[in-house]
Parts: sequence; C-alpha cells; structure tokens
Amino acid sequence: MSLRKEKEGWSEAPVGVFDSGVGGLTVAREIMRQIPNERIVYFGDTARVPYGSKSKETITKYSRQIVHFLQEQQVKAIVVACNTASAYAMEEIERELDIPVLGVVKPGAKVAAEVTRNGRVGVIGTEGTIKSQIYTTYIKEMNPEIVVQGKACPLFVPLVEEGFWKDPVTDEIAARYLGSLIDSDIDTLILGCTHYPLIRSTLGRIMGEKVTLVNPAYETARELKELLTAENLLNKKGQGLGNNRYRFYVSDMADKFQIFANSILKYGILSARKINIEDY
Amino acid sequence: MSLRKEKEGWSEAPVGVFDSGVGGLTVAREIMRQIPNERIVYFGDTARVPYGSKSKETITKYSRQIVHFLQEQQVKAIVVACNTASAYAMEEIERELDIPVLGVVKPGAKVAAEVTRNGRVGVIGTEGTIKSQIYTTYIKEMNPEIVVQGKACPLFVPLVEEGFWKDPVTDEIAARYLGSLIDSDIDTLILGCTHYPLIRSTLGRIMGEKVTLVNPAYETARELKELLTAENLLNKKGQGLGNNRYRFYVSDMADKFQIFANSILKYGILSARKINIEDY
Repeated sequence: MSLRKEKEGWSEAPVGVFDSGVGGLTVAREIMRQIPNERIVYFGDTARVPYGSKSKETITKYSRQIVHFLQEQQVKAIVVACNTASAYAMEEIERELDIPVLGVVKPGAKVAAEVTRNGRVGVIGTEGTIKSQIYTTYIKEMNPEIVVQGKACPLFVPLVEEGFWKDPVTDEIAARYLGSLIDSDIDTLILGCTHYPLIRSTLGRIMGEKVTLVNPAYETARELKELLTAENLLNKKGQGLGNNRYRFYVSDMADKFQIFANSILKYGILSARKINIEDY
Repeated sequence: MSLRKEKEGWSEAPVGVFDSGVGGLTVAREIMRQIPNERIVYFGDTARVPYGSKSKETITKYSRQIVHFLQEQQVKAIVVACNTASAYAMEEIERELDIPVLGVVKPGAKVAAEVTRNGRVGVIGTEGTIKSQIYTTYIKEMNPEIVVQGKACPLFVPLVEEGFWKDPVTDEIAARYLGSLIDSDIDTLILGCTHYPLIRSTLGRIMGEKVTLVNPAYETARELKELLTAENLLNKKGQGLGNNRYRFYVSDMADKFQIFANSILKYGILSARKINIEDY
C-alpha cells in the first residue's frame, strides 16, 4: 500500500464499488451524497445475479474475478456493496488486496449494536447472508449480550427488481417474513441486503415506529469517508461532473441496468458498459 | 451422427437434459414417465440461475458450455429443458452438435396451434422468452392467422423456488399478470417456462375452465420418444433402477437442488454432483 500511496495523484483515483447487480447502487448513491468529490467505478454482476442463493465457494470465485477487474481500473479502495459477498468473501478479498477494502456488513453491525436499547436486534437478508450468521458474529464481538435474530427474505430482491416497491403484494410478503421478528420484540432491524432500502417505507410501516431501521449503505459510505481520511486518500480535488466521474460496468444487460440505475441515482448515469467478467 | 449410431450399444446411452436450475426437472419427470427405459444425465446451472432476465449472448455462451459437458457424458441426444435457452441458443447448439437436439418451445408451440379453436393463444414466460417472440414465430409458421399474445411473468420463478406453489400471494400476482390475457379472450395458454407446471392449478383456476393449458414439458417428452424411435435410438433394454439410471449435476448448491428435486420427482434422486461449468 505504501508504494501506491506515495504515487503522485493517487488520492484522485476512483473508488471501486461492486455488487451482484443493481442493489449496490444504494451504496454508490450514499457515497455520491456523502463524499461527492470521489470518483466511482461501479461493477454489477448482472450475468450471474443473484448471489443470495449461491454457495460461499461460488461467491468467493465471482468476487475475486471482480476485484481483479477493479484493480485493473486502478481503484484506490474497494467497497463490497453486496451483503452476501461481504458475508462470504471479505477475508479472501482482504488477503488478496494491498488497497483498503470495506464491506457493508461491519458498518451496519456496528451501528445496530450502538442503537439498540433493549438488546434485541433483527437482521433481514438473503439466504446466504443469514446462513453465514455474519451479522450475529460481528454484533456479538461488540456486545455478546445482544440477541440477534436473522430472517432470510428471498422474495424481496425479485420484488424490488420487478418494481413492486410500493405494492400490496410486497406488504403481504413482508408481513409474513417479518412476523417472527415482530413477535421477538426487536427494537432495531438491519436491512442486510442492498436492495432493501428501496422498500424501506414498507418495512418501516410493518415494523412500527418503535423499531429503528439500520441501512448499512449509509453507514458504509460514512465509514468509507473516515477510512479515506485516515489513509490520506480523500480526493481533495473537486471533480467536474464529466463523463469520467462515475463509470458503470456490468456483465450483462447494460441497457436494462442503465434504466434501473437512472431510477435510483440522482445523477443520470451516462452509460453502462458490458465486460466479460469470466476473463478476470 | 452415422458413425455414433452404428456404435455398439449407442441406443443405451443416456439422454442429456439441461436447464438453468430446477425448472427442467418438470421435463425430466415427463421423460421418466413416458419413456421409462431411458437413462438421463441432467444438468442444472444453479450457479448462474436465472436465465430469464439475461441476454441472448450470455445464454448462448452458457448453453454451449453445458452442451460440451453433456457431450463428455456421452449422451445420445440433448433436450434443452429451458424455454429461455430454447428461445435464444437452439440454432447455435444445433450447429455444434452431431446428435439429435430438442428444445421445449417447438413442441409446445405445435400443440397450441393444434388445440386452439378461436385462434387466440397466450404465452407466459420469462422476460427473455417473451422478448424473443419465439413462440409467436413458430406458431405463425404453422398457422399465420393465429393471434399470439405474450406476457412476461418474472416473479413466478422466485415464487416457485420459494415454495409458494399454492398461496394467496401467488394467486394475487398471477391474477395481475394474467389479466390482460383474460381480457384478450385467449382459449389456449402455453406455460412457457419449465417452472410454471408447478403452479398449474393456480394458473388453471385464474384462467378458467374454457382455457386449455399447454405444458411444453409433456409435449417435449412425447416428441423425444418419437425422435428416438425415428432415429432408432430408443433404449430397448429395460434398465434396473440402479444408481446409474438418472444422474444429476449442478454448478452450485448440490444439497439444495437435491431437496427440491426430491419434492418434484417420483423417484428419489440419489445424489447431485457439483461441477465447474465454466471449465467447459
């Protein structure tokens, strides 16, 4: 890392952000809001989405290929903007990289441990994230007395991707998924999948006012800012809003990704380019 | 083909069947029912499922890899038990193979063209299958006067995979998806995705008694029998129900596949083996 840090202008290099598809855009959005001077190279693995129902071995292989691609793009730091990849592949990625890398799980877990008053925290996510117990592990490291209850919600991702953001069907499915968490009297709920902030209002309504929703996307962007500051990597040069500021790559269906991204991001994305991720 | 056909015992070779995941098991099940003497090698691409929302280029690449794997298994014929792959990759696969290959689309289209009385046929399937207009093309080749109306139903696959086979939520989503087809007064509906036979009773109830549901899985098995007979490839030797009769391979999550398969197939599947499909 030291070598690169001393390189002229290295702090102006982009941050790499990746996800299985479009969900990680909620993380990219928070980075754009909180540290608007940073350039971003985003990769969405739209050819192999979803990650949530796949094995650790497969997710690790995919994540390594993506990290190789991002390294080729000369990123100064990498944000794993996918809970499943953060749950399964962080260790492997950290071992491989000589630049700072940040997942979405740790920042989310940290805040949840801080904000719970009754020591009962719920986590919703994909099958993979919940099965990995990664949130439980991190939260218990911070405070072993907190009780963490996970619930996999496999239909949320397809519902969001189908555009059912505010819909009675989503309400009904959410009510079923969340029932056991309500019964457990949690006071904090982690949205443990980057798609979920898009149905935040539904989730909030069902859980009720007394439950705090934790959005790891927000916490991750905040922690990224701290990390870049500490490493003296914060881009102090204001960037123009040119073509080069935010770059988007996908492994399939660039057009569809672009439409979806434009519905989430404030800044229109200029274009998404398809690459062959299996070559990395 | 001639060389292989003359090979001693070639008719006893297995039939290769592949799908993006578990959906193609409805086709395998029909083959088991209708031609019980046949051995089957099944491949489910569970690492890269679903295919329905991916591009033609990507689906063709994946299909070619799978076909190479099945060829290595010495199959005498291949059934593309996935509508999206049949819609996008059949030509490419046929060009590459010197053994008979059969998709699920043509047999389904043929029967629909035969059974419609009012000349109005509906097709439901994944985004990819509907966008390809493949059913329309085949049906119009047989009878240009038939009006074909397609409707993509992207949530059906995740609902089936989540086990919501008989559920008010599935009813509600199906009612929305099928509304425009009911309004169009179709009398025949093609279940253009191999997952859909698993929610057949819901679909039948919503469409009403006057609409004939066409299950391409059934028609494909029937056509396979005809094809093998014509090519003198029918396995005349009764097989024992040993380990080797039906073999299952997947690209990920073999355990989960096994549980799902056992809930669909009458014969318990003995085991599913994971292979690295990207190597083919």
